[in-house]
Amino acid sequence: MLEAAIRVFHKKGYASASIQDVADEVGVLKGSLYHYIDSKEDLLARIFEDSAGRFTAMLDEAGGLDERPVERLRSFGRACSLWYLKNIERVGIYATEWEHLTGKRRKEVMVIREAYERRLAGLIGEVKAAGETAPELDVNFATYFIFGALNGLPDWYRRRGPDSAERIADAYADQIVNAVVGGAR
Amino acid sequence: MLEAAIRVFHKKGYASASIQDVADEVGVLKGSLYHYIDSKEDLLARIFEDSAGRFTAMLDEAGGLDERPVERLRSFGRACSLWYLKNIERVGIYATEWEHLTGKRRKEVMVIREAYERRLAGLIGEVKAAGETAPELDVNFATYFIFGALNGLPDWYRRRGPDSAERIADAYADQIVNAVVGGAR
Repeated sequence: MLEAAIRVFHKKGYASASIQDVADEVGVLKGSLYHYIDSKEDLLARIFEDSAGRFTAMLDEAGGLDERPVERLRSFGRACSLWYLKNIERVGIYATEWEHLTGKRRKEVMVIREAYERRLAGLIGEVKAAGETAPELDVNFATYFIFGALNGLPDWYRRRGPDSAERIADAYADQIVNAVVGGAR
Repeated sequence: MLEAAIRVFHKKGYASASIQDVADEVGVLKGSLYHYIDSKEDLLARIFEDSAGRFTAMLDEAGGLDERPVERLRSFGRACSLWYLKNIERVGIYATEWEHLTGKRRKEVMVIREAYERRLAGLIGEVKAAGETAPELDVNFATYFIFGALNGLPDWYRRRGPDSAERIADAYADQIVNAVVGGAR
């Protein structure tokens, strides 16, 4: 159901799409969807929660590796870039439609988002604590810088076409690490 | 007029805003605006052209500095970050509303955008040609990576608040340079 909603929201835009469109895409009656969700906004919130869960899982996995902090960061950078490239539609919705969430749902999504931003900041903080960055590195600015670079992927990838996702993910992982450790002396 | 339109589009969203709203913000009759523009979409296209002009000017200025390529890149990174931070509303429109442009106007905006992406790629290419990057650096990927990081600025800056724009711009300029030269041996 989430995958169908992602395709529909991507194609028509969240604002113009209806629950009926999603039901048509799944191939069920609209009433059946209402067993699982209570509104279109609920569906959008589910997409966000599900995506945030994947982020958290990627951060967990990279953070749990028995390697130097800088290699844990590289591993997250690579995994996250690949995930973005394989979920272009979902990430596009994530980037542009969150303003359609209101009230409690919007607050929840912001809380989850800040939680995984703090997780990435933690990973970068470990690289800094290991003495592998410039001493003046601002961990928060680096976190936002990196998320910005990642969030920009779907847009140009869609425009440009046929680069290998693996090549891009390797390049992005290197640039993420470089952005963080590059100024070390 | 453009500044008024930016405020209105930012506040109401482009889709919900009307030429009447913009006229009210400027403090003139709607008819007066039609001397200068022929539609709301025309106004949006003007905002884009004007912003792209500033990008090009920043790239010209940095590219014309009598310094090493890496310092020209740092200078652009700093100037562009500062400009983003001082034009949060405009950049937000740039990032989210371009899909509302149609036909010829959309094509024009894409052409301009690709032109300044190529300019930044040129600046990065000079850093590479000077032997200051890893030999395997992909100049195009680095260009998109950097634009992504810059485009992400308005969103978190609005959420987080009171960091000094100068401190952020210095940090971003360093991270931009690091992302490009960090892997050099």
